[in-house]
Amino acid sequence: MAKGVLPVDDAFERLRALPYENVGVARVDHHRGIRQGVPEVIFGEGKTVEQIVAIARSMRRAGSGVLVTRLDPEKMRAVRRRLRGAVPHAAARCLVIRDGRPKLLGKGTILVVTAGTSDIPVAEEAAVTAEFLGNRVDRLFDVGVAGIHRLLGKQERLRAARVLVVVAGMEGALASVVGGLTDKPVIAVPTSIGYGASFGGVAALLGMLNSCSPTVAVVNIDNGFGAGVLSSVINRL
Amino acid sequence: MAKGVLPVDDAFERLRALPYENVGVARVDHHRGIRQGVPEVIFGEGKTVEQIVAIARSMRRAGSGVLVTRLDPEKMRAVRRRLRGAVPHAAARCLVIRDGRPKLLGKGTILVVTAGTSDIPVAEEAAVTAEFLGNRVDRLFDVGVAGIHRLLGKQERLRAARVLVVVAGMEGALASVVGGLTDKPVIAVPTSIGYGASFGGVAALLGMLNSCSPTVAVVNIDNGFGAGVLSSVINRL
Amino acid sequence: MAKGVLPVDDAFERLRALPYENVGVARVDHHRGIRQGVPEVIFGEGKTVEQIVAIARSMRRAGSGVLVTRLDPEKMRAVRRRLRGAVPHAAARCLVIRDGRPKLLGKGTILVVTAGTSDIPVAEEAAVTAEFLGNRVDRLFDVGVAGIHRLLGKQERLRAARVLVVVAGMEGALASVVGGLTDKPVIAVPTSIGYGASFGGVAALLGMLNSCSPTVAVVNIDNGFGAGVLSSVINRL
Amino acid sequence: MAKGVLPVDDAFERLRALPYENVGVARVDHHRGIRQGVPEVIFGEGKTVEQIVAIARSMRRAGSGVLVTRLDPEKMRAVRRRLRGAVPHAAARCLVIRDGRPKLLGKGTILVVTAGTSDIPVAEEAAVTAEFLGNRVDRLFDVGVAGIHRLLGKQERLRAARVLVVVAGMEGALASVVGGLTDKPVIAVPTSIGYGASFGGVAALLGMLNSCSPTVAVVNIDNGFGAGVLSSVINRL
Amino acid sequence: MAKGVLPVDDAFERLRALPYENVGVARVDHHRGIRQGVPEVIFGEGKTVEQIVAIARSMRRAGSGVLVTRLDPEKMRAVRRRLRGAVPHAAARCLVIRDGRPKLLGKGTILVVTAGTSDIPVAEEAAVTAEFLGNRVDRLFDVGVAGIHRLLGKQERLRAARVLVVVAGMEGALASVVGGLTDKPVIAVPTSIGYGASFGGVAALLGMLNSCSPTVAVVNIDNGFGAGVLSSVINRL
Amino acid sequence: MAKGVLPVDDAFERLRALPYENVGVARVDHHRGIRQGVPEVIFGEGKTVEQIVAIARSMRRAGSGVLVTRLDPEKMRAVRRRLRGAVPHAAARCLVIRDGRPKLLGKGTILVVTAGTSDIPVAEEAAVTAEFLGNRVDRLFDVGVAGIHRLLGKQERLRAARVLVVVAGMEGALASVVGGLTDKPVIAVPTSIGYGASFGGVAALLGMLNSCSPTVAVVNIDNGFGAGVLSSVINRL
Amino acid sequence: MAKGVLPVDDAFERLRALPYENVGVARVDHHRGIRQGVPEVIFGEGKTVEQIVAIARSMRRAGSGVLVTRLDPEKMRAVRRRLRGAVPHAAARCLVIRDGRPKLLGKGTILVVTAGTSDIPVAEEAAVTAEFLGNRVDRLFDVGVAGIHRLLGKQERLRAARVLVVVAGMEGALASVVGGLTDKPVIAVPTSIGYGASFGGVAALLGMLNSCSPTVAVVNIDNGFGAGVLSSVINRL
Amino acid sequence: MAKGVLPVDDAFERLRALPYENVGVARVDHHRGIRQGVPEVIFGEGKTVEQIVAIARSMRRAGSGVLVTRLDPEKMRAVRRRLRGAVPHAAARCLVIRDGRPKLLGKGTILVVTAGTSDIPVAEEAAVTAEFLGNRVDRLFDVGVAGIHRLLGKQERLRAARVLVVVAGMEGALASVVGGLTDKPVIAVPTSIGYGASFGGVAALLGMLNSCSPTVAVVNIDNGFGAGVLSSVINRL
Repeated sequence: MAKGVLPVDDAFERLRALPYENVGVARVDHHRGIRQGVPEVIFGEGKTVEQIVAIARSMRRAGSGVLVTRLDPEKMRAVRRRLRGAVPHAAARCLVIRDGRPKLLGKGTILVVTAGTSDIPVAEEAAVTAEFLGNRVDRLFDVGVAGIHRLLGKQERLRAARVLVVVAGMEGALASVVGGLTDKPVIAVPTSIGYGASFGGVAALLGMLNSCSPTVAVVNIDNGFGAGVLSSVINRL
Repeated sequence: MAKGVLPVDDAFERLRALPYENVGVARVDHHRGIRQGVPEVIFGEGKTVEQIVAIARSMRRAGSGVLVTRLDPEKMRAVRRRLRGAVPHAAARCLVIRDGRPKLLGKGTILVVTAGTSDIPVAEEAAVTAEFLGNRVDRLFDVGVAGIHRLLGKQERLRAARVLVVVAGMEGALASVVGGLTDKPVIAVPTSIGYGASFGGVAALLGMLNSCSPTVAVVNIDNGFGAGVLSSVINRL
Repeated sequence: MAKGVLPVDDAFERLRALPYENVGVARVDHHRGIRQGVPEVIFGEGKTVEQIVAIARSMRRAGSGVLVTRLDPEKMRAVRRRLRGAVPHAAARCLVIRDGRPKLLGKGTILVVTAGTSDIPVAEEAAVTAEFLGNRVDRLFDVGVAGIHRLLGKQERLRAARVLVVVAGMEGALASVVGGLTDKPVIAVPTSIGYGASFGGVAALLGMLNSCSPTVAVVNIDNGFGAGVLSSVINRL
Repeated sequence: MAKGVLPVDDAFERLRALPYENVGVARVDHHRGIRQGVPEVIFGEGKTVEQIVAIARSMRRAGSGVLVTRLDPEKMRAVRRRLRGAVPHAAARCLVIRDGRPKLLGKGTILVVTAGTSDIPVAEEAAVTAEFLGNRVDRLFDVGVAGIHRLLGKQERLRAARVLVVVAGMEGALASVVGGLTDKPVIAVPTSIGYGASFGGVAALLGMLNSCSPTVAVVNIDNGFGAGVLSSVINRL
Repeated sequence: MAKGVLPVDDAFERLRALPYENVGVARVDHHRGIRQGVPEVIFGEGKTVEQIVAIARSMRRAGSGVLVTRLDPEKMRAVRRRLRGAVPHAAARCLVIRDGRPKLLGKGTILVVTAGTSDIPVAEEAAVTAEFLGNRVDRLFDVGVAGIHRLLGKQERLRAARVLVVVAGMEGALASVVGGLTDKPVIAVPTSIGYGASFGGVAALLGMLNSCSPTVAVVNIDNGFGAGVLSSVINRL
Repeated sequence: MAKGVLPVDDAFERLRALPYENVGVARVDHHRGIRQGVPEVIFGEGKTVEQIVAIARSMRRAGSGVLVTRLDPEKMRAVRRRLRGAVPHAAARCLVIRDGRPKLLGKGTILVVTAGTSDIPVAEEAAVTAEFLGNRVDRLFDVGVAGIHRLLGKQERLRAARVLVVVAGMEGALASVVGGLTDKPVIAVPTSIGYGASFGGVAALLGMLNSCSPTVAVVNIDNGFGAGVLSSVINRL
Repeated sequence: MAKGVLPVDDAFERLRALPYENVGVARVDHHRGIRQGVPEVIFGEGKTVEQIVAIARSMRRAGSGVLVTRLDPEKMRAVRRRLRGAVPHAAARCLVIRDGRPKLLGKGTILVVTAGTSDIPVAEEAAVTAEFLGNRVDRLFDVGVAGIHRLLGKQERLRAARVLVVVAGMEGALASVVGGLTDKPVIAVPTSIGYGASFGGVAALLGMLNSCSPTVAVVNIDNGFGAGVLSSVINRL
Repeated sequence: MAKGVLPVDDAFERLRALPYENVGVARVDHHRGIRQGVPEVIFGEGKTVEQIVAIARSMRRAGSGVLVTRLDPEKMRAVRRRLRGAVPHAAARCLVIRDGRPKLLGKGTILVVTAGTSDIPVAEEAAVTAEFLGNRVDRLFDVGVAGIHRLLGKQERLRAARVLVVVAGMEGALASVVGGLTDKPVIAVPTSIGYGASFGGVAALLGMLNSCSPTVAVVNIDNGFGAGVLSSVINRL
């Protein structure tokens, strides 16, 4: 049995050769783009302007495009002053830095749907992320189930999508209805929109997890970024 | 201030004159029919056959019709053997004893809608209760939102109803959709149908409480009886 | 089977003809008044002054009265400066814009009851909403169950109501007691009043859902608006 | 500082002299009667007949009366066969063994009140425990708040009590109402009676913890025994 | 049966004679002092300075002493400026207005114990309330179970108390230990002191509800006031 | 506005032409195969043998293959006796009836991974469902993260997959690790395997929802069927 | 960057050389003993007798001792009939198979303490596991905090221990008290003993996580096995 | 039996001789250093600058080193101005006052590992605490499981540690993976890092409690201090 031990250790030694760069605040993982097909992204919430700028510059030095998410207006202004060429997406609370336009890598269109207008920031985070990763994105906002004709009137855009992202707070019922109207994968994003017994998005989350449409999968509450990445990864298949 | 105390005491004395009869296991409240417009009903779960029979007989002696709810098949058989003339409603797990047919007291039709077939027992409890209380009841079962055309194809029956009861488990989304298609009150009954993150009906309950349709109110999980009573009380207005 | 597909598509095409107007931030659903019997209402929380004004103006252009809810004092002032003729209801945190007085559409009186004084803002939201929708509203505040004589002394007003709205935080027991004293429908509104194990209204919500009075249905925590709409819809029957 | 260490050790040495007897399955704490004023009681649930009998005999040898709680009918029969003179209290699921009648130690009457008939087993556990500990107990069952006149008609018995125990499931509202009608301490016992959103007694527990009557304190769900002991301890003051 | 209806109505009419005064913001219930043995108290949190002053003045006019609880420093200063003779209790966040010293109504001493120093504000609220209601109060602070000798060294003060109030956050274990060292009633107050998995006092609340000492009852998280009232009510027996 | 109403009604009329067949217990939705790309499936749990057989026969008459899930061994035997040609998949608790082998519709391989051996039934439900829907499925079981080399040694099979399904109970950490090793979509299925603070799968569910790998989406606890359908839908893109 | 990819792949190839044996139901991980210092253990709950026997035999063939946990009495008998030389530990619900006595690997004594007698099965699981792994174990049972002198009288045994395991249900307070009496590490095991608001061990779990003794760490509810392993790993240091 | 009572009382008298000093805001427990092997530490959160300074000075007078935790930047500056010689640890939010360097008391190295950069403040609190208590500490930050090679490349540092502290938010999976790679005790610290369904650290907490690695124990969310103390206590064995 001891025989097995050595090769393992040896293998682990070689793992050190992996390309990442220690920029002090974070091990910037340049390799992830290769392994996972997504460039590193900076989650802006809870990071200082200095930390964001340092990580972004390290990524730029490595030749990568940069997406910064969850920036409140003030932090966005501060980061933009220090990072030249950063393009803001206010509704999405995101910032994008890259050379030229993204290469189109997704094969079809990703449709991002919201139940209400308050869900738009999360939906835009998903949409901007998917565009950053090289996808065509269509947006269909404020088509919640209490006025079902608003959604039914847009059937052909549902059908034109290759992947769908449904963003909804409150009872989150939209995901099930959309799932019943398409034969494509539906990524559901519960939002923290609501009050009282919405419990910060838990009602929508549970509604989506219990969807009677078996083509629906769910990401974390308000996780527009994750929905953008996952829909992009699916759209590249 | 002491002046106010005596009349109160006096008043409370007189309250003793209220008509109820102590049958040992429960104070049968014959007066409730007058106060609340509903005859006393026996919640069968957790009561023994003997207790059910004793309460039912007391009510029959007082001239009242009797509804027994939440009877499993075995208990239903045992109660029927001892209470002549009891009419079983197997799907609703209910038993009805009365003289003749109920007088029609509700002004319109109560429509009971379910999302799936597993929700039918709770829906039937609501329907049988409403019929027992003198209402016309229409039933529209298995029209959940993942196949929205099933519901949309029945619009005229939705429109014909004066009060609607929507019974759904899992994500409970049907209440919101129905609420958006009618201008009549919707009583939503979450059911414990589901598994995993349905948490015994909590997902449906939260979904319904967070309904984006403002004409929806909610009763307890699996509370078909309450929905039957409340829809009946509304239908008498 | 393929035969069924075409008519559906055809039907969905026609749904596009439904009257709504895209005002940028929200699809204002002028049609809802027809379908649901309630004019569109603006939920003020989380919307900017600009968004509220834009939606309100679109509604006014369509000839509709406007109700704006959940306005904190500062936002209410800002909106009033830009919308001439808006009538504030400070205790309800609401703003109403309409031509003349509402037509009386409700057949009886809606009685709004509160357990404590802290529940009044939610109760007023319900009352103002019901008045906006054409109902006579009676108010009976601060009659919680720890001093039951306060409620019992007002029995004739309970009996005079056609629909009751009970607003209570903490243990929410008032809904059950009121439900036991009337044969009319009771809409219960749990409030987030309380601390510690009230869990932001959850204790009151659970208390109301488990009411031993079968004529009680519940809406979301602090949802005075929903209670106003639903009681109005019932009062029009 | 080291000076302080020795006396402590010394003190702890002496603690070993405390009178208890190791009967194999449990350290029977004969001393507790002295310290806490209550004899040791055997919680029957989860213990085998053998364990119960062994502990009971040890207590009998020490001259103590014995109360065994939470016995299902079968276990009660088995224990009775082996412990001569044990008096069963079926409704309370308890068994009492003692010489003669308990000495009256409580100064007044403890009133045990229930909301419904299903709460009676827990109420009887409280009542039998309090009687075992030397108290006069009055019982007022099935006076829940949905028929408030049943309770109000019994005002003089509420007023005659020195300590009150209120046992209620579902929304647990009875404790607040009783608390508002008396100036004596109220021990509230939530029960697991209910279904759906009662969550095994949580709704009643929260309702009682949030009682607007400040003379109410709460024990664990279904903890009739604790309420019996605590009300007894208060009644001896 | 109809016979019973009239006396009830009659009785309810007379209930109107009960003495209370509508001061606009609250029905001040002067009668409660008679029914419950406690004067009305003003819960300061969530009330404006104007509301507090209005209610306090109404109570003063009725000849009652006044206790105002849950006042942050700023509000306390504002209220004091407008209510002459109000005595502040800063640590308790309370304000007392009365003529002369309270009459001693409690028969023994109430001992208020805390686990840590952060629990003191809640403990002081209990102590000041009990003193306001005419009780001798002893204080034993910062004797948590991780240094059990601090508590054990104060045994004689535990034994001298007639009623005990135990105030503790985090795991709330102190209530069980104190309950094991005394034969007097223990009112346990969980506090919201703690972080992470204390969940705002839930851990302490559950710990106290599950106390293995059967002489412990629990009030709401941070409810020092309730503990003060209840311990006072017990101490008057 | 009234103009818009008629076409809608007209459209809804036509929806009735949709092909479904009422078999008494359920509206068998033959159309769903067209809309969603998946044949109707029978969820066996909570259905009687008679119901399952009736629905299955209706589907067979319509020419569809049939998948029955969640069959305990006894029910599976009973159904097989009545449905000739049904092929059991014991580990998956599923039954398949179809003519010949499924046509290969998925473009790549779906890899189903489990953390432990107890997760296999849920994983097999996913695998059998995916195979039923025309996919090649690879299985990699019992490679949980506490022995990370078991997973790392299978890297090439991870890389060979077009879609991955990760099935794990307890802490559910495997989804994140797998998500970090592949650039393909990962469908995570939490299972109810575990005890204590796993809370029936909640710990795994939360772990997966909070995955630091943005290519992971989650379905309901134990929802192997949903994972099979969704991975199939993705694999057909 | 691509440079880094190859060594990693190469390394992962070599990981396959690790010694494990596929016995059909589980990848028996013989290597773990080397990596983690603990032999593989069979979690008996949810496994069939056949699965347990197969895994046990594989382990025996590899020369390892075997510990099987969570065996109910019937399964234990069945396994013993098929595995010669298996030694049962009934109170711990465990079975041990090994050659001779375990070598003493732990440097000191592990003391296992319980609050009540109902906690003993979990405590014995911890104790038997620790003994199996080569430790001296002392047991101190039924010394809960409501009778604190029982614990204080055993101070010298607390002091003699090198590692302590505290097993308690209900409020779990014992861990904090023990933590305050020793300067050695305390592993706390909450148990599911209790009822009502113990929520299957959650109250004890939260109590222990919020311990005011900073030398306490917690394992899962009822996880006696984990406490046995971890205390053993610490005792080998 | 009475014989046993006196020695106990006697013993408790002597407990008063224990050395602590009442500094007004807290009973500074100088004795704890002897009993538990850790000096008293000041939890800065919720304490005023004046309280912190008073306690710190009392400890300094007793000759003890002082560690103050949970200081926000402003409070840290204020405390430093008043306590000469206090050394700040900004990343850990801690302040240390002592004479000279700590004596090395721990036998090996404590390795503190984090999943992300946001977990660093909690990790630093653990590290600074452990250093304060006389341990060598190694830090390995930002090695979360979504990029598993970052951790695997640091195997020799894992192996060099005598005790490990794993700090992780979100899904908390790192603890299980680390536990599988070492045979030393692992103290897991869930952090409140995350959003949505992380529920303030609950997801990580549950993940760690359900770890499939039996050498992992858990402390409270964000409890870096506790992890530092416990790992230190273990490292002294």
